Amino acid sequence: MKHNIWNEQTNMSMLTDFYEFTMSNGYMDHGLCDKIACFDLYFRRIPDSGGYAIMAGVEQMIDFLTSLNFDNNDIDYLRSQDTFSEDFLTYLQDFKFECDIWCVPEGMPIFPNEPIVKVRGPIVQAQMIETMLLVTINHQCLIATKSSRIVRSAIGRAVMEFGARRAHGYDASVLGARAAYISGVTGTSNTLAAQQFDIPCLGTMAHSWVQAFDDEYEAFRAYALSFPDNCLLLVDTYNTLKSGLPNAIRIAKEVLEPMGKRLKGIRIDSGDLAYLTIESRRVLDEAGLQDCKITVSNSMDEYLIRNLIHQGAQIDSFGVGERLITSKSEPVFGGVYKLCAIGDSGDELEPRMKISDNPDKVTNPGCKELWRFYDRASGKALADLITLEGEIINEDEPYEIFDPFLTWKRKTLINFRVKKLLEPVFEKGRLVYERRKLSEIREFCLEQQNTLYETMKRFENPQLYFVDLSQDLWDLKESYLRDHSDI
Amino acid sequence: MKHNIWNEQTNMSMLTDFYEFTMSNGYMDHGLCDKIACFDLYFRRIPDSGGYAIMAGVEQMIDFLTSLNFDNNDIDYLRSQDTFSEDFLTYLQDFKFECDIWCVPEGMPIFPNEPIVKVRGPIVQAQMIETMLLVTINHQCLIATKSSRIVRSAIGRAVMEFGARRAHGYDASVLGARAAYISGVTGTSNTLAAQQFDIPCLGTMAHSWVQAFDDEYEAFRAYALSFPDNCLLLVDTYNTLKSGLPNAIRIAKEVLEPMGKRLKGIRIDSGDLAYLTIESRRVLDEAGLQDCKITVSNSMDEYLIRNLIHQGAQIDSFGVGERLITSKSEPVFGGVYKLCAIGDSGDELEPRMKISDNPDKVTNPGCKELWRFYDRASGKALADLITLEGEIINEDEPYEIFDPFLTWKRKTLINFRVKKLLEPVFEKGRLVYERRKLSEIREFCLEQQNTLYETMKRFENPQLYFVDLSQDLWDLKESYLRDHSDI
Repeated sequence: MKHNIWNEQTNMSMLTDFYEFTMSNGYMDHGLCDKIACFDLYFRRIPDSGGYAIMAGVEQMIDFLTSLNFDNNDIDYLRSQDTFSEDFLTYLQDFKFECDIWCVPEGMPIFPNEPIVKVRGPIVQAQMIETMLLVTINHQCLIATKSSRIVRSAIGRAVMEFGARRAHGYDASVLGARAAYISGVTGTSNTLAAQQFDIPCLGTMAHSWVQAFDDEYEAFRAYALSFPDNCLLLVDTYNTLKSGLPNAIRIAKEVLEPMGKRLKGIRIDSGDLAYLTIESRRVLDEAGLQDCKITVSNSMDEYLIRNLIHQGAQIDSFGVGERLITSKSEPVFGGVYKLCAIGDSGDELEPRMKISDNPDKVTNPGCKELWRFYDRASGKALADLITLEGEIINEDEPYEIFDPFLTWKRKTLINFRVKKLLEPVFEKGRLVYERRKLSEIREFCLEQQNTLYETMKRFENPQLYFVDLSQDLWDLKESYLRDHSDI
Repeated sequence: MKHNIWNEQTNMSMLTDFYEFTMSNGYMDHGLCDKIACFDLYFRRIPDSGGYAIMAGVEQMIDFLTSLNFDNNDIDYLRSQDTFSEDFLTYLQDFKFECDIWCVPEGMPIFPNEPIVKVRGPIVQAQMIETMLLVTINHQCLIATKSSRIVRSAIGRAVMEFGARRAHGYDASVLGARAAYISGVTGTSNTLAAQQFDIPCLGTMAHSWVQAFDDEYEAFRAYALSFPDNCLLLVDTYNTLKSGLPNAIRIAKEVLEPMGKRLKGIRIDSGDLAYLTIESRRVLDEAGLQDCKITVSNSMDEYLIRNLIHQGAQIDSFGVGERLITSKSEPVFGGVYKLCAIGDSGDELEPRMKISDNPDKVTNPGCKELWRFYDRASGKALADLITLEGEIINEDEPYEIFDPFLTWKRKTLINFRVKKLLEPVFEKGRLVYERRKLSEIREFCLEQQNTLYETMKRFENPQLYFVDLSQDLWDLKESYLRDHSDI
């Protein structure tokens, strides 16, 4: 990257919590260097109490892992901390990534407590990548999830991502735009994001354009002359209905129509958007400008959009800023990364658990597989099932699932097909993932959301989706808890 | 930067809302290219209804502006949008930054509606940098402000920034740690942030360390042997009081004391932290480990920290994660960038305003200066005053300030000294700012917060600080509003 706030020496491989390094060094000290560990990355709660989240960030995780290395500058820095052994520093200097990684593909709806990334490899390495995996997956899942809610609320109207100025920094703006595009926004105002990820680039004018000219009509006229094919006028700098709208209509008639062009739209960024858009629509229609679109912005999110539509506001598209790019109503996606097994070789790992006073924080032991059951007739997703590795699910036989807490709640699935959700991404450090176009990921996301029942898409009290444990995994967990409960 | 998620071609200069480019192109089309404009960057509300915010992000703004340029790759991309004139693209290709910029220095307490960054220069340029200035200043002010609240809540106890995994991306984690350090955290777990900005680097162990060994005692013992000088044990993997704490004490006695070392601390990351820390303190003290520190983590913010201290929890330091690094309770800092004057040369600019139905969104016209009045006797900050450029304040004469809305509320200041808060950073595109060590900015921040009355530091209903307009500025604004109110 050129011309950046970072300097030439900046190495993103150092974006790691310091304790990952100290623990890795400790593992080496105590002969655990060759131990193979398995970690699950999963989250515990869907933001905004929603019915599902959206997976995103896999390709940036890959970018990080394929360029993981430590140079002299980094080694010197770590040495200066008086904490690390020379053996460990040499190990870092010669670092070669050797883990297996599986991920749920980007765009897929995901649910609490299921592994969405699985890492298996030398414990020193699997530990060290924790922070970077979490920051990457947490951030993009957060924004993709919020964006899917906002896009849903607009019921087919366009939603445009306009949040760069309020993002938490540079890659929050760019990767946030990426995640938002995956779950359905039509484009972004962020030029760098558009360029990097081939997202449609959108924009109109700011109030400063209108203020820069001696009056509003002159400002609109100048814009229409410069951009006659894409003339979208911001009408609320002085007074929307008394000044902005009449001036916009004059531009349509006096400037654009003589050139054979149409006024593409108006944007309103303040005031009562239900009242102003209904009035504007009426006045535009009376002026023969039925094709002029109305865009609104100003603190949009799924709740306000739903309310505006419910009140009959006449809006064709929504510019959404800070409330999407920061997921303002709930700005944390709580992904965690937990050790679930360890052993001498990848084939024979011993399960491990974290036990907590808080039942939500008790982890699931063992190396696992994640399955989704789809109804053969309707194509709808019925349930997700977490099994141990190696379990087989026969599509031709009924399969009984049960609630892992309320175990008397049971359901037998028939006429289903199953899909393994964890795809291989790295095999012993070698990348086996094929990159996808972002537009393909976006289509996949839409298609997979269509497999969800509408009842899961409500903003309040959505239907709970089943995420169950197989009998074998449940038995393993219970016996582990019994064996360790008297500690 | 090396080994990054961005590729070689990525140019941060493209991180700009698309409309900044279209407007800039439009200004050129209509002969405004040589017009000089003045923009104010300011915010309207303090997050969390606090008494003040903290300025941060100036040095990253400088990094961006000193490397602003557009290469063939960028020009080709913009050309492909079928929107821009060749004249404009040539202008970008030959871009040379020529603006004047003034900023409030980093670490300074700041208040709503006052210009914290002022930009004056060719309108094409001053417009184009809007997005990057906003994302930079908004993000770091947000985190510095939140961090100052959390540090204040701990009343002298250490607060450690542990949020990387929940940040909104990579530079949110690194620059968030930078901003948090400015307003008082003692260090960060983020190795890259520590390395880049010379911040103390902190860390202990994760639950995975404990799980990786066959039992907790063995895990603690291995850690103590690897890091005897800095042995801080995480005691809640299985059961804090029944297992973790007794094992930690055994380590202190059986492993560390024979080596002449002390147990540095324990960390508790779950459960009831008031109860557990009071019990742990008692048990540690009884074991002769009065010097063993107790650290807690788990969803810390200013409210929980205050409550724990209020309940007599025995805590020496707080590890603060997601609620600081995302400013979870209010994740948006609403800085805006508004045109306030325009003209043919920098010396004679004509004031401009945005008028809105919403009085909060009405801007202040004209090129301005920002002053802080300090009481000569106590050193306390008394009020901020926004004047027009060129106004003089005589420290030897009484000065009457008044509320710009409730103009009958007046107060005469005497025995004060004044300080201009806007420092020159760029002069005609040339950098005139001298870089500061982050530790110096941090000291300055602490010192400036000490000039604020304690009544402004409450979390609820803090005392409102005066930010007033000079009579000349107030008169200008009123007359502008009168002249334009019938549009």
